[in-house]
Amino acid sequence: MSKIAVVGASGYVGAELVRILLDHPRVEDIIVTSAHHAGQDLADLYPNLPSGKLILQPSSDLEKIKEQVDAAFVALPHGSSAATVSLFYSSGKKVIDMSADFRLPADVYQRWYSREHPEPQLIDKAVYGLTELNRQEIAQAKLVANPGCYATSVLLAIIPLVSQNLTTEKFYVSSISGSSGAGRGLSDVLHFSNLEGNLIAYKTGGKHHHIPEIEQAIKDKFNLEIEMAFTPHLGAFVRGIFTTVYMSTKETISSDKLFEIYSQFYKDKIFVRIFKEKSPELKAVIGTNNCHLSVIYDEHAGSVVILSAIDNLIKGAAGQAIQNFNLMFGYPETEGLKNLACYP
Amino acid sequence: MSKIAVVGASGYVGAELVRILLDHPRVEDIIVTSAHHAGQDLADLYPNLPSGKLILQPSSDLEKIKEQVDAAFVALPHGSSAATVSLFYSSGKKVIDMSADFRLPADVYQRWYSREHPEPQLIDKAVYGLTELNRQEIAQAKLVANPGCYATSVLLAIIPLVSQNLTTEKFYVSSISGSSGAGRGLSDVLHFSNLEGNLIAYKTGGKHHHIPEIEQAIKDKFNLEIEMAFTPHLGAFVRGIFTTVYMSTKETISSDKLFEIYSQFYKDKIFVRIFKEKSPELKAVIGTNNCHLSVIYDEHAGSVVILSAIDNLIKGAAGQAIQNFNLMFGYPETEGLKNLACYP
Amino acid sequence: MSKIAVVGASGYVGAELVRILLDHPRVEDIIVTSAHHAGQDLADLYPNLPSGKLILQPSSDLEKIKEQVDAAFVALPHGSSAATVSLFYSSGKKVIDMSADFRLPADVYQRWYSREHPEPQLIDKAVYGLTELNRQEIAQAKLVANPGCYATSVLLAIIPLVSQNLTTEKFYVSSISGSSGAGRGLSDVLHFSNLEGNLIAYKTGGKHHHIPEIEQAIKDKFNLEIEMAFTPHLGAFVRGIFTTVYMSTKETISSDKLFEIYSQFYKDKIFVRIFKEKSPELKAVIGTNNCHLSVIYDEHAGSVVILSAIDNLIKGAAGQAIQNFNLMFGYPETEGLKNLACYP
Amino acid sequence: MSKIAVVGASGYVGAELVRILLDHPRVEDIIVTSAHHAGQDLADLYPNLPSGKLILQPSSDLEKIKEQVDAAFVALPHGSSAATVSLFYSSGKKVIDMSADFRLPADVYQRWYSREHPEPQLIDKAVYGLTELNRQEIAQAKLVANPGCYATSVLLAIIPLVSQNLTTEKFYVSSISGSSGAGRGLSDVLHFSNLEGNLIAYKTGGKHHHIPEIEQAIKDKFNLEIEMAFTPHLGAFVRGIFTTVYMSTKETISSDKLFEIYSQFYKDKIFVRIFKEKSPELKAVIGTNNCHLSVIYDEHAGSVVILSAIDNLIKGAAGQAIQNFNLMFGYPETEGLKNLACYP
Repeated sequence: MSKIAVVGASGYVGAELVRILLDHPRVEDIIVTSAHHAGQDLADLYPNLPSGKLILQPSSDLEKIKEQVDAAFVALPHGSSAATVSLFYSSGKKVIDMSADFRLPADVYQRWYSREHPEPQLIDKAVYGLTELNRQEIAQAKLVANPGCYATSVLLAIIPLVSQNLTTEKFYVSSISGSSGAGRGLSDVLHFSNLEGNLIAYKTGGKHHHIPEIEQAIKDKFNLEIEMAFTPHLGAFVRGIFTTVYMSTKETISSDKLFEIYSQFYKDKIFVRIFKEKSPELKAVIGTNNCHLSVIYDEHAGSVVILSAIDNLIKGAAGQAIQNFNLMFGYPETEGLKNLACYP
Repeated sequence: MSKIAVVGASGYVGAELVRILLDHPRVEDIIVTSAHHAGQDLADLYPNLPSGKLILQPSSDLEKIKEQVDAAFVALPHGSSAATVSLFYSSGKKVIDMSADFRLPADVYQRWYSREHPEPQLIDKAVYGLTELNRQEIAQAKLVANPGCYATSVLLAIIPLVSQNLTTEKFYVSSISGSSGAGRGLSDVLHFSNLEGNLIAYKTGGKHHHIPEIEQAIKDKFNLEIEMAFTPHLGAFVRGIFTTVYMSTKETISSDKLFEIYSQFYKDKIFVRIFKEKSPELKAVIGTNNCHLSVIYDEHAGSVVILSAIDNLIKGAAGQAIQNFNLMFGYPETEGLKNLACYP
Repeated sequence: MSKIAVVGASGYVGAELVRILLDHPRVEDIIVTSAHHAGQDLADLYPNLPSGKLILQPSSDLEKIKEQVDAAFVALPHGSSAATVSLFYSSGKKVIDMSADFRLPADVYQRWYSREHPEPQLIDKAVYGLTELNRQEIAQAKLVANPGCYATSVLLAIIPLVSQNLTTEKFYVSSISGSSGAGRGLSDVLHFSNLEGNLIAYKTGGKHHHIPEIEQAIKDKFNLEIEMAFTPHLGAFVRGIFTTVYMSTKETISSDKLFEIYSQFYKDKIFVRIFKEKSPELKAVIGTNNCHLSVIYDEHAGSVVILSAIDNLIKGAAGQAIQNFNLMFGYPETEGLKNLACYP
Repeated sequence: MSKIAVVGASGYVGAELVRILLDHPRVEDIIVTSAHHAGQDLADLYPNLPSGKLILQPSSDLEKIKEQVDAAFVALPHGSSAATVSLFYSSGKKVIDMSADFRLPADVYQRWYSREHPEPQLIDKAVYGLTELNRQEIAQAKLVANPGCYATSVLLAIIPLVSQNLTTEKFYVSSISGSSGAGRGLSDVLHFSNLEGNLIAYKTGGKHHHIPEIEQAIKDKFNLEIEMAFTPHLGAFVRGIFTTVYMSTKETISSDKLFEIYSQFYKDKIFVRIFKEKSPELKAVIGTNNCHLSVIYDEHAGSVVILSAIDNLIKGAAGQAIQNFNLMFGYPETEGLKNLACYP
């Protein structure tokens, strides 16, 4: 049994961690903290959560809290996360960082985030937490850099082919995400009257921060330098990312062979399911830690097309973090994550 | 003033033609027909339409109806449309065909639709009705093959660059359409409980019938053979198509230059608007005949990214048809089409 | 032809007035003002509007603007509206006030809005602008107090029966409104991630400000003191109000008789349509100035049930205001308001 | 540990039972049957369910199946359910019937369903399965008639006051339900393009079959004859029922007192939560077996207003059935039902 701190519990990722951990059979205690809502009941912010047992502690208590827990999930904004990660890490606690602070080498981080890395000495200690890519390393890790939501969605779509060294280096990727990916902060674009019935692209032209994350993960694991054109879109739904990837293979390949490669690659990875001759459906993964994939060869255009669907807050954030937590503590990988999607 | 027949008025495209024509200042009479709902008031099927003045006539009356009108919009399924088109055309009436029957050469038609073309002698008479591409020809035409919805969305996105001979031949295109594109027919995938909150791809792997249409239009006009990987998606909204195109240019090009090329190309085309450094929004075109575009150069990946948004039932069908009708009859191009989108 | 000022054009009601007036055949010039966005192009806030011709003027220019126009629509918040109304009114311009400032007697206003009325001397000059109730008075008016959205929805549902003196004084009313009724201002409850898939009641227990407005309108016109239990709800859609009213009649009455009473009452009122044995559909009125009604006698419970559907921003605000404007200037009542709903 | 049959597993209620039972710690085996889809994998109909282990058995095997299980959930249409219920019941198996077949006395059944009751001798054996009303009786029951979705939503809202004999006999109730309440069958009104953005009422005028069910439950338990005006509405969402009740109390009562009565009544009923001065939110109960309530006294109109929110497929169907199953087998009441809603 483990005692857990969720630092930054008032945000969507934090609250989702709490929601899942509340029904996790190996978790006996959850301490929640918040910089802006200390003293409040988390259930006042999230009416789905039980009231009376999740009082948000102030950030100033982290020194004390770190002595009371076995592990911390740090769900703070990029940049401010690193210091808290360091606090828990240096007192020997296992840490899963939900931010981007430990996903990139210092130089790449500086280039994309326009700031010096706040805790560069820790970067080497962090394992990139795409579970299906780094399961062994994660099981040994003390610090896991949990992947970004788009990065999870794209990497799960491409790593089987990349791992076989079958692709050329160019990838064309369009993803569409629900609004929850943008968090709890109010903004015009997230105002219901504006977003309902709408669909837009954003950070077009190679600007999204998950681009270097994806390229780095591929480089680190497969020593391949890919070039990815990536356009994120925002759709009028709350949860989910649907990703469509085009890539070329070095040689012509059949859809059957592609299905075989993907099935083989994911055969022991319980949260990934490959559909044959059928698109994944976003709705079938919402509320779950699952990723649904399909892959096909487009003979007309000579291109591989890969489709992936995840819940951005679960497999794209809190769920994968708990999957990693399970590995780090030797618990069954599916503990706390067995939910099936509501359908319809 | 013109008298009009809308053949196949009970379908979504037919009803949308009627809705727009009812407030068209140059249209004095609208005869509506339906194979399956003859005798019914169209307002019983569409509660937005006024009751008591749109009684559906049987298809068996077409011989008589063709004598009473100046033009016909034929909104019948592919394959069955051609005979009705021929009926009106051969009696000297101008015809706008909403189906795919006259968009392709006979051999390409046969390959993609797996049937012989029913009226091959008419194919040469038909002008492809993408107004912004063929305005002059349409103004002279007696038969217009109105474009498909995806084809409109993609072609408007790519023709400025293609017309300048600046692109390579490979295009990677993802489009997401609302449910109305699939029509009035019931099906599991269009059942509200299944589609709400969902998003799927379909006809993946180069199977959609608008692919040859797009390639043909480019070939006919610009003598360029393009290869397009195209994936249509279905989203949980009713109207609209949002398209994201990746392509490569023969030489590096700046976003500013791209904006200039697009602005120049569309400067006299009132229904197309180019946004600079800002994505189109689906919602801003719904209910209108407008197409909103933006174009950017992604330096990271060395790719041009083009975004387009249309209302699939208006610019992608009924609206463009009426735009073409206006040209064919010498009316102002915007007649009946001045509506602005509701926003919010 | 009229020249128009829209004061407070950056809000949803203001922008909707502009959208409709842009295509109004009797309006030749529209001056738009904004306290917070002066100098901006309204099209930068509303991508549905044409760019380059709607530059927001500062409130400080109102003195000058009032000389340039024939009428003003004042779309300012309750309380701050009255002074601007007075400015235009006192220089002899016709004014349509979108706020609640002139809908109530001074004492009732003070009780419900907890402030003294800012311009009590003008209250008597104002005609309550529910067109179907006060058409003659509106045609003569110099100042119209345009009704609230819920008030329009409820009054159109009940006035035929009330006018016949057939009802008891108790009314039980539930309405559900889309998010646009709450305006452009950001808030947690209007955050897309919170509202999508949600439905809540608010201002329960007789707190909504449209309650006294409805009761007052009935009292003024029919000298009847009604008591209304009213619960507004917020649904996950942008536009529309659907209202369900229960009331008792003094004597038993048949559904047929009810249909006859309603049809008779509204027979010359072009924007109201009565459905027999069929519920109104919200979607069939969105984007229009129409109100769809149905009325039935529930024999099981001995109660009349009335259903009404309107677009809250059009018949519930901007559209009705323009309908009133048409009457005040002797234009055809439907000018600018002929749009049919998109369906699907 | 129990072995379970779900008869009629291909419908929404059947599939929801399966989804919940798959993760129920006291259920070791689930046999699924279907009249129309026998031989198919249920996962082919429901992509949220795991493939390969839920093969639908034909109805013709029910004789055999009844020997292999401890209990059956019968999720068949009204009328055809009774025979299957009888089959399992007569061989001594506990049965939970999801249909309306055993919710009413034979005469009331015949009046509302226009058919003779197929198994009248069993009606007396059935306990009405509103858990919070009949917990003791359910624990002893061999046959439970699981309540209708609207009935659950309304009864949970009114029974605390009714049980205190504080109300008059008139109730005015408006409920809005998501589309899943209408099941998997295709129809025009459930076509996505029609329902999205829409809201309608249906079965107006006292026609809905849950009216006698609610009145009967109150009569049976509290010996009170109520008269309920009830209007069901269909909204553009998939799951959930939100109900708004108006009623009068014999004497004036404060909101505080009402809160106290409700809190007291539900203090040991873990799935019901009372909100003070705050509306329930539909979204906070979706995916759960919870019912959220609030109650307030409207002093303006002299009326009590009660609001309730449930997930129609869970607390309104499958979840409550499993709650009843838990009681019937002596399992903890919350077994299998601990899920919290996703929020956002």
